[in-house]
Amino acid sequence: MTRYFEDFEAGTVRQFGSFSLSEDEIVEFATQYDPQYLHTDPVAAADGPFGGLIASGWQTGLECMRLVVEGLLGPADSMGAIGLEELSWPAPVRPGDVIEVENEILETRPSSTRSDRGYVRNRTVASHDGEPVLTWVAVNIIGTRDR
Amino acid sequence: MTRYFEDFEAGTVRQFGSFSLSEDEIVEFATQYDPQYLHTDPVAAADGPFGGLIASGWQTGLECMRLVVEGLLGPADSMGAIGLEELSWPAPVRPGDVIEVENEILETRPSSTRSDRGYVRNRTVASHDGEPVLTWVAVNIIGTRDR
Repeated sequence: MTRYFEDFEAGTVRQFGSFSLSEDEIVEFATQYDPQYLHTDPVAAADGPFGGLIASGWQTGLECMRLVVEGLLGPADSMGAIGLEELSWPAPVRPGDVIEVENEILETRPSSTRSDRGYVRNRTVASHDGEPVLTWVAVNIIGTRDR
Repeated sequence: MTRYFEDFEAGTVRQFGSFSLSEDEIVEFATQYDPQYLHTDPVAAADGPFGGLIASGWQTGLECMRLVVEGLLGPADSMGAIGLEELSWPAPVRPGDVIEVENEILETRPSSTRSDRGYVRNRTVASHDGEPVLTWVAVNIIGTRDR
């Protein structure tokens, strides 16, 4: 059931479901990894630029990543990622927001030097009420069927 | 002691210290957020493309973020980030690797529409034995002194 490089096709769009974060989850995560008051202190954040607590963009990213692994990379012969070409947080994520995650395969390209792998460029978009709150473009390395 | 937009200067390089991740920490984190065998299964990973367990790039990113907040954003009037222009993982991070983190301010630019803030473009580089294992370029929003 493994999905190989040859099984990816540009233009394929996948819906990965949704997630939401509670105030407690936002504060707990940010206290450990991104301790800025926007993410850790509901009272101070209420007077801040967003008028309330918002999730660390890293936490939004991780929740997306979990769904991307479940729906895209976990079933694939994934050999890691080169990186993200961009990662943007165009709007804040607030406690209780339901965030829908989808992914589109943008491009597939065999490795020019190693026949056992290829590159799959893909965009993940997370949205709340149809408005993007996170987008990234990743380049993942996927094994070929006959390696 | 707050650092405002006006206090950031292109060219400033800061050392933020180091971190390392144990095998247990790598597996525990990835099991929750990035459950690919490269990050969760030392035995299977030994036969994989890196010849052993490697950390999720997201975990490396978070450990860097914690140090960036401590050294750069926490003392600043931080109003969030637009995003990352790039996030790359040029080499794997293995259990016990000591990863040094530094940051350079690349550019500062006042907001053209809002006098209460400016944009600070900065690069974070994490290295192991002098070899980069993570780089990102972030654009952070920082409040101005007189807002």
